[in-house]
Amino acid sequence: KLVEELAVLNGGGCSECRRPIADKMADFALESQGASVISSRCSQTYTSTSGCLTLFGIPLWSLFTSPRTAIQGSPILAGTCWCFVGAEGTLAVSLSHPVKITHVTVDHLPSYNSPSGDIKSAPKDFEVHGMKTQAGEGTFLGKFLYDKFGEPTQTFSLPTPTDQSYDIVELRVFSNWGQKEYTCLYRFRVHGQTDVS
Amino acid sequence: KLVEELAVLNGGGCSECRRPIADKMADFALESQGASVISSRCSQTYTSTSGCLTLFGIPLWSLFTSPRTAIQGSPILAGTCWCFVGAEGTLAVSLSHPVKITHVTVDHLPSYNSPSGDIKSAPKDFEVHGMKTQAGEGTFLGKFLYDKFGEPTQTFSLPTPTDQSYDIVELRVFSNWGQKEYTCLYRFRVHGQTDVS
Amino acid sequence: KLVEELAVLNGGGCSECRRPIADKMADFALESQGASVISSRCSQTYTSTSGCLTLFGIPLWSLFTSPRTAIQGSPILAGTCWCFVGAEGTLAVSLSHPVKITHVTVDHLPSYNSPSGDIKSAPKDFEVHGMKTQAGEGTFLGKFLYDKFGEPTQTFSLPTPTDQSYDIVELRVFSNWGQKEYTCLYRFRVHGQTDVS
Ligand SMILES: [K+]
Ligand SMILES: [K+]
Ligand SMILES: [K+]
Repeated sequence: KLVEELAVLNGGGCSECRRPIADKMADFALESQGASVISSRCSQTYTSTSGCLTLFGIPLWSLFTSPRTAIQGSPILAGTCWCFVGAEGTLAVSLSHPVKITHVTVDHLPSYNSPSGDIKSAPKDFEVHGMKTQAGEGTFLGKFLYDKFGEPTQTFSLPTPTDQSYDIVELRVFSNWGQKEYTCLYRFRVHGQTDVS
Repeated sequence: KLVEELAVLNGGGCSECRRPIADKMADFALESQGASVISSRCSQTYTSTSGCLTLFGIPLWSLFTSPRTAIQGSPILAGTCWCFVGAEGTLAVSLSHPVKITHVTVDHLPSYNSPSGDIKSAPKDFEVHGMKTQAGEGTFLGKFLYDKFGEPTQTFSLPTPTDQSYDIVELRVFSNWGQKEYTCLYRFRVHGQTDVS
Repeated sequence: KLVEELAVLNGGGCSECRRPIADKMADFALESQGASVISSRCSQTYTSTSGCLTLFGIPLWSLFTSPRTAIQGSPILAGTCWCFVGAEGTLAVSLSHPVKITHVTVDHLPSYNSPSGDIKSAPKDFEVHGMKTQAGEGTFLGKFLYDKFGEPTQTFSLPTPTDQSYDIVELRVFSNWGQKEYTCLYRFRVHGQTDVS
């Protein structure tokens, strides 16, 4: 019983500083590692601006318009994200290496860091598809839900790790948490094993 | 008694990794969120350089001359700050949203990361003022002290949260911890509630 | 016995979030603090690229070719490093201040974040030399081993802290962990005491 109590105490003090499991895995969608976005397959960037979201007279998000923002691994600060128009959209990434995919990760701004206290622009339902070439047909790898009440960094296991290696991964978002005009991606990661060399 | 001992043990191992409360709140002075500095209301940047503080023959701080450095939320590394001339100065920020202000935060380099082991250039006594427009009169919101012996990230509660929302906040520094020539700001944050929309 | 068990439990939850000792010391090789690389004394940057390591058709490392990358203190992400040709090479740093050197630190990407799961390009055997001027003779300060099975951030104590202050430090790498073509440095730090002023 004492052990249990103390474990709870311990968790209370420490859980917030425990790093998410995604930080303990290689990220094959990371730009500095050699990944890149396939702009032609990505959705239209949201650039309209309503009122407060300007900076030096420039719409805020035009400073972060590129889908590249979602694969650069920078710290998660409010606004350092890629936003696409509407609630449905695609981010396509050419991975740094061909990978047998086991997990993907979506990071979003915690709601306690959001100006509104809510993260309505976070993705909700999404699928992940893999491709061997840009010309190739995509293979469905899994359907997941980013939970706005969960941890900011959420890692999803594929139902079964892929048998084959993929060079390209598409994140296809189908809904968000209530923001009609745009959906924001802070970071998308792809995990798995490279072919032994 | 055992519980107490272990809690101490636990704290000893974990307190340093517990994130400051400021990291759990929205920051309405954050540039990527839409805030901006009002340069015309900020003090003169310290650009003189004495001896060691050059980089490729360029005065070190000219690389970081802008007050923007203090609202960009980058990690706190020695020298990534905005320094103004003397011990009195002002940083004026146009907030990302109109906010009923409850807290402000000042971050500085920890003394154990400082080349001299001391942080004489840290701000000491300061006031915070709020404005609705640049033309408007400032309203005094509180007077505080940044304690150089405290944690690097210090969050201050306003005596009473503001009834009204403010669009602009001025940080007015009146003294520092002993450095006559300049005062350095690593980060300034503003916390509160936006109007419900 | 219970105390021991719980200490282990505690360590299991917390050890990974305890910051390395290097983060608690000043770093006199940090660029933002005023240090700079002496390019003429640094080894040849590795720019060749084999297959997967390109980004938008540009060899990946040409984006990070400068030895400056190793003294900028940015977060350790795969690929944000300086790689030199072969297994032997030198990084020369003009320190931010003259320092009586007590420790140096080498950071590398953790193997669990590496695409291959291994860090063959990490430095292994290395020496540190100090100089008062670029023309001056170097003084041997210590010989160390970066352990690829150890923590990502490894701090090394000099056998004896230096009596004199040095303005320049050279990191001389003599071997790596098995990568024949190149060796990568993520971060190099120099710790010690400045002369009292
Ligand atoms: K980001
Ligand atoms: K800063
Ligand atoms: K680096």
